[in-house]
Amino acid sequence: MLTYNLSKRGKTPIYEYLYKCIRDDILMGRIKAGDKLPSKRSFAKHLGVSVITVENAYTQLLIEGYVSSVEKSGFYVTSLERSGKAKGPVPKGLIEEEFEYSYFSDLRSNRLQRLNFPFSTWARLMRYTISSYDDALLKTVPYNGIYELREALCTYLHNNKGMNVEPYQIFIGSGTEYLYSRLIQLFGTDTRWAIANIGNQKIANIYDMYNAKWSFVDTDNMGPLVESLIRHRSNVVHISPANNFPIGNVMQVKRRQELLAWAEASSERYILEDDYDSEFRYRGAPIEPVYAMDTAGRVIYLNTFSKTLIPSLRISYMVLPPELVERYQKKLSFYSGTVSSIEQYTLAHFIRDGYYERHINHMRNYFRTIRESLIGAIMDSELGRISTIIEPSAGTHFLLKIDTKKKDRRLTEDIRKMDIEVAALSEYLLTRSRDTHTLVINYCGIHRDRIDETADRLAEAVLK
Amino acid sequence: MLTYNLSKRGKTPIYEYLYKCIRDDILMGRIKAGDKLPSKRSFAKHLGVSVITVENAYTQLLIEGYVSSVEKSGFYVTSLERSGKAKGPVPKGLIEEEFEYSYFSDLRSNRLQRLNFPFSTWARLMRYTISSYDDALLKTVPYNGIYELREALCTYLHNNKGMNVEPYQIFIGSGTEYLYSRLIQLFGTDTRWAIANIGNQKIANIYDMYNAKWSFVDTDNMGPLVESLIRHRSNVVHISPANNFPIGNVMQVKRRQELLAWAEASSERYILEDDYDSEFRYRGAPIEPVYAMDTAGRVIYLNTFSKTLIPSLRISYMVLPPELVERYQKKLSFYSGTVSSIEQYTLAHFIRDGYYERHINHMRNYFRTIRESLIGAIMDSELGRISTIIEPSAGTHFLLKIDTKKKDRRLTEDIRKMDIEVAALSEYLLTRSRDTHTLVINYCGIHRDRIDETADRLAEAVLK
Repeated sequence: MLTYNLSKRGKTPIYEYLYKCIRDDILMGRIKAGDKLPSKRSFAKHLGVSVITVENAYTQLLIEGYVSSVEKSGFYVTSLERSGKAKGPVPKGLIEEEFEYSYFSDLRSNRLQRLNFPFSTWARLMRYTISSYDDALLKTVPYNGIYELREALCTYLHNNKGMNVEPYQIFIGSGTEYLYSRLIQLFGTDTRWAIANIGNQKIANIYDMYNAKWSFVDTDNMGPLVESLIRHRSNVVHISPANNFPIGNVMQVKRRQELLAWAEASSERYILEDDYDSEFRYRGAPIEPVYAMDTAGRVIYLNTFSKTLIPSLRISYMVLPPELVERYQKKLSFYSGTVSSIEQYTLAHFIRDGYYERHINHMRNYFRTIRESLIGAIMDSELGRISTIIEPSAGTHFLLKIDTKKKDRRLTEDIRKMDIEVAALSEYLLTRSRDTHTLVINYCGIHRDRIDETADRLAEAVLK
Repeated sequence: MLTYNLSKRGKTPIYEYLYKCIRDDILMGRIKAGDKLPSKRSFAKHLGVSVITVENAYTQLLIEGYVSSVEKSGFYVTSLERSGKAKGPVPKGLIEEEFEYSYFSDLRSNRLQRLNFPFSTWARLMRYTISSYDDALLKTVPYNGIYELREALCTYLHNNKGMNVEPYQIFIGSGTEYLYSRLIQLFGTDTRWAIANIGNQKIANIYDMYNAKWSFVDTDNMGPLVESLIRHRSNVVHISPANNFPIGNVMQVKRRQELLAWAEASSERYILEDDYDSEFRYRGAPIEPVYAMDTAGRVIYLNTFSKTLIPSLRISYMVLPPELVERYQKKLSFYSGTVSSIEQYTLAHFIRDGYYERHINHMRNYFRTIRESLIGAIMDSELGRISTIIEPSAGTHFLLKIDTKKKDRRLTEDIRKMDIEVAALSEYLLTRSRDTHTLVINYCGIHRDRIDETADRLAEAVLK
């Protein structure tokens, strides 16, 4: 009779251990197909366990199909196609976790410095959410987002950006990329997307993944040119009118009106306004979005909290014109929501109670100081006499144009040797590569007390 | 000279209010293109404000392109293509927020009852995360998820499901649907997906949105049939072997081996195992996933926390075989992460500290009690003598087969009139519709003290 050492079972229940022993013997061919298992009673006696224990083990084998039961006879081993122990594939372990290198200064990433986020307020609001909304948290997340958050956003957009928006127009998603992909599905495969030929390659990658039709359109320093949109027969154009990254100028009213007129000329033309960096403006009043100038429902407005709060928070939103809301409800409302309710309620309170505006103001002042110190330090250094600062009016970066013969690639390599990470403007020219002798300095994550040293290192790297 | 009532500005800074007044006059055509604005000094005197205030307003108009500056002369209004006040489109307000109806008993939704989630523990771990990981929270989320969470999942999968997984194989996403869409992009447009012809229509909707090729394949009570996969020339097949929703049987070892052999026969064949409901098993030992039986790296494993924790938590994960991990890294690692770091760290601790297992055990016992009470109440009612219970071994539902002449649609309508929401089995038959006289009873969200009354109402609705 089958014999197993049940004392080896550790913390596993006896019946489960017994089931596993028999199962493995079946899989390894040690018990053959058609073999009859011992009767429960005699097997129990043999092993010194209760009949119930054996019965439970047999039932488990039966449920999973390792044995079949023949009435008034007993349990018989099933005929299996293959044998071999059920072991998971042993991963090679070749792909190691990336070790994240920390530069002396990283002038490329959007990582923030400590103390720039009101963690304790956030924790308090989260705790409040958990204790006050426990009933709502037990429900699934609405596909378009929690009502309270959409309502808070309406008020915020009205007071701070002159936008008239109703909650039903707002859609919450786990990141701008996620919302992009929803828009691609909303518009369908016939739509032709237009991306500025300077800026962010990622949008193009996303379109490619969805097999969407897109083209780079020509730009001047104000953004996409209408004649290029017409030439490419584009339907939807991406713009960031408050801050054309990386050049950073504000799109002037003339171009805004040209684009609006272009969109209004055909029923399937839209402007996709990504307003992601507009909160950090250092001069003058906030720029009203193109959305607020639109009277015909041709503008889709997108924004994110990853930039204004913390990068690790994955909450973005978009505002659709009413016509597209209806289309979205019909076509895409079967998708589940993608942002956990706890975070949505917490953010709703954060905005409604005024913490968000206060935080934006705090960050704006912080960035202004950092920006001025860094520009001052660079212009006071050896680098100053051959450099021109091109200052966007918003965002967290400026351009540093250097009068040098070094190619852009060489420039960034030499700077990296000084333990400073930085990008050249040419990396953002998407349709042609040429040397710009210009660096894109993102001061978002620089240590306050490393500003002078960073300027000196930049100077040394460039001039040596 | 232009005159504005600056006392109406409310809390707006004077310069900003002045800028807006002039801007609106330009847009409305009250100040014409080519008009010269008053000199700063005289205008300031006229309005009784400082020169700086006027200067700031003019600068803002200049930045946005409403005026241009002519050296040694002054500011001139730009020629604009169109006029009309910059007001957002006024939404019709037609689409009202959905009022969520609350049934006496909802036997369809996955909404949970209160007190079934350890909110205070979750809140405590979140607070701990915020205070301990503030530095990590200032960074962007890795595209594949936080390492600590992937590591905790490896241990959990090993100890509870017999799966050998390394952290690099795991990918975290904001919901199973999100991960599906990544897989569709990972495999590309030539892949043919197979969905069981009984179960969840949603997967088919998602494939349609991505223009992916898919087909319903024939099933028996164990799941998809290999011959049907071959006939449809499928590459990837969806299965839920621990709980074939809604029939609910465990996929027996014979079918598992058949499917594995099918997958191994060609390099582009994979099994997509959605293990979403397997934790709630009421009889016998946990069922090992097919992933754990796979020795050739042909199984993709998917699971979610929306079902085992709370529906409003949007965290799912998938385990890819090493070969697909490499492909994913090359093709899709440009995407940003979709789950906020705070929630990922919190969940990692929740799992690592044993709260997850404890919660699963608690819920399993809770559901077992509810299930037994509800089945008991139904069988004790008038309905009992014409009903058969078909009990899946896992999940949070059972099937109630009723010996009645009423059509399925009529059955659910009559029950809805008793303020009880429920689905008929026929709603899950995706390729042909026929009356099943069978209800799918999801007891996930039923009030404990409404069980008897619910059974009585079901009986009344069916028998009247």
